[in-house]
Amino acid sequence: MTIPDLRQGSIGIFDSGFGGLTVMRAIRELMPNENIIYFGDTARLPYGSKSSQTILRYSLENATFLEKQGIKILVNACHTSCTASLDHIRHTSNVPVVGITEQGVEEVARLFPEGKIGILATRATITSGTYQQQLLNRCPSIELFPVSCPLFVPLVEEGYVEHPMCTLVVQEYLQLLKNKGIQGLLLGCTHYPLLQAAIQQELGPDVHLIDPAMACAKQIRKILTENNLLTPSLTLPQYQFFVSDDPEKFRLHGKAFLNYPIEHVSQKNA
Amino acid sequence: MTIPDLRQGSIGIFDSGFGGLTVMRAIRELMPNENIIYFGDTARLPYGSKSSQTILRYSLENATFLEKQGIKILVNACHTSCTASLDHIRHTSNVPVVGITEQGVEEVARLFPEGKIGILATRATITSGTYQQQLLNRCPSIELFPVSCPLFVPLVEEGYVEHPMCTLVVQEYLQLLKNKGIQGLLLGCTHYPLLQAAIQQELGPDVHLIDPAMACAKQIRKILTENNLLTPSLTLPQYQFFVSDDPEKFRLHGKAFLNYPIEHVSQKNA
Repeated sequence: MTIPDLRQGSIGIFDSGFGGLTVMRAIRELMPNENIIYFGDTARLPYGSKSSQTILRYSLENATFLEKQGIKILVNACHTSCTASLDHIRHTSNVPVVGITEQGVEEVARLFPEGKIGILATRATITSGTYQQQLLNRCPSIELFPVSCPLFVPLVEEGYVEHPMCTLVVQEYLQLLKNKGIQGLLLGCTHYPLLQAAIQQELGPDVHLIDPAMACAKQIRKILTENNLLTPSLTLPQYQFFVSDDPEKFRLHGKAFLNYPIEHVSQKNA
Repeated sequence: MTIPDLRQGSIGIFDSGFGGLTVMRAIRELMPNENIIYFGDTARLPYGSKSSQTILRYSLENATFLEKQGIKILVNACHTSCTASLDHIRHTSNVPVVGITEQGVEEVARLFPEGKIGILATRATITSGTYQQQLLNRCPSIELFPVSCPLFVPLVEEGYVEHPMCTLVVQEYLQLLKNKGIQGLLLGCTHYPLLQAAIQQELGPDVHLIDPAMACAKQIRKILTENNLLTPSLTLPQYQFFVSDDPEKFRLHGKAFLNYPIEHVSQKNA
């Protein structure tokens, strides 16, 4: 009997749709030899407008699916899902779990532990209050300005990133942050980095935009290193993609998020 | 053994979310004594951005659920779902099936059989081409101007109906219909009647807005009458509501669509 080499396992990532590919992109940059399995729950997106109970149920299903694929670490790359499910997933999972929101908190704490910080996120993320609470626990003298942006995900998913409508919607939401003196702005949804240019344009160059994707990748590398789980392989890695809606749409549109061509996508009903 | 009185059965309606309540409203106005069971698939909405295969699968599940509740007629009140599933549902169903799109076609044929007609609908509805094909089959000399409006459903679902952003988005989509000389505009999604004021404002008073909800209610009454299935009851009817996401959100927001208070909503996982 041979014991399977856990180091050869994949990094499992899930998100409600395309957004988590920005996290996969950071992981690829930092650990180019690691195998990755990605699941996007495109048939049930968006999560950000739904109730925490429904988001929790979907998230647990996603985590279970990835664990069955033989992963060595699980990444919840969806902020909305994290605020509703991270503790539950950690409780039921057999592998280490990394949540994008925790890395958002750490990144803010590293850069502006006593700053004035805006948070842009979905309605579900902001309403849950989880992000705000975790930031205040970590940095008690921080000042927070949370803004929910329910139209950002549809704008990005519909490919309006460079459309005049996008500028108008960005202006509308960001006017709530004008004249607040914020130093940093946490992009609390993995879709929002695709709106980075419009957001920076609106707020001016003095506000630092914080995308937790790279911090998330670094945390994954740290955990894999400490547990001797980094792949010893120096060959090209395998990337597997699963979605719950049309694989072809994901393959075509995913490129913009991943910054890398996607060859094959499988469907898993949800 | 007593034979159950089919006339006491309910009218079953489903939609991806709140939109179908505008159809229920028309049915209530026309047949105030009929019992109605409504199902809104709020945990998986919106349908309009998803693939026809996924929409078909969800729609068949919704139809099966309603049939199990003891309905005497089934109404598919979601245009997007109709273009992907109406024939399939009719094939598998044991009760008469009415689809909102067919009534949209009939209403256009009645009002402007040789006119220039704009169609506003979701991306999935427009892309399927089903609506356009059915209109052309029915009225060969009609001229059609279809426009997909993927942000309208998020705008309505997020309650931005009277927000300046709504005006901007309406202007953006409707500029494609300016100077085309259209006489009528088919509202090809049950969410869009809630944007009626902004749409009429943008196009001016000479364009006739066509909402198929009342035509749909009339067709239901016709089928029930012909099959001797109208309720003989003169007492207050029973309304039952089921949704797949948060019942309370549906109860609170549904009022604006139904124009009538919603007392109790049950959850059915999906």
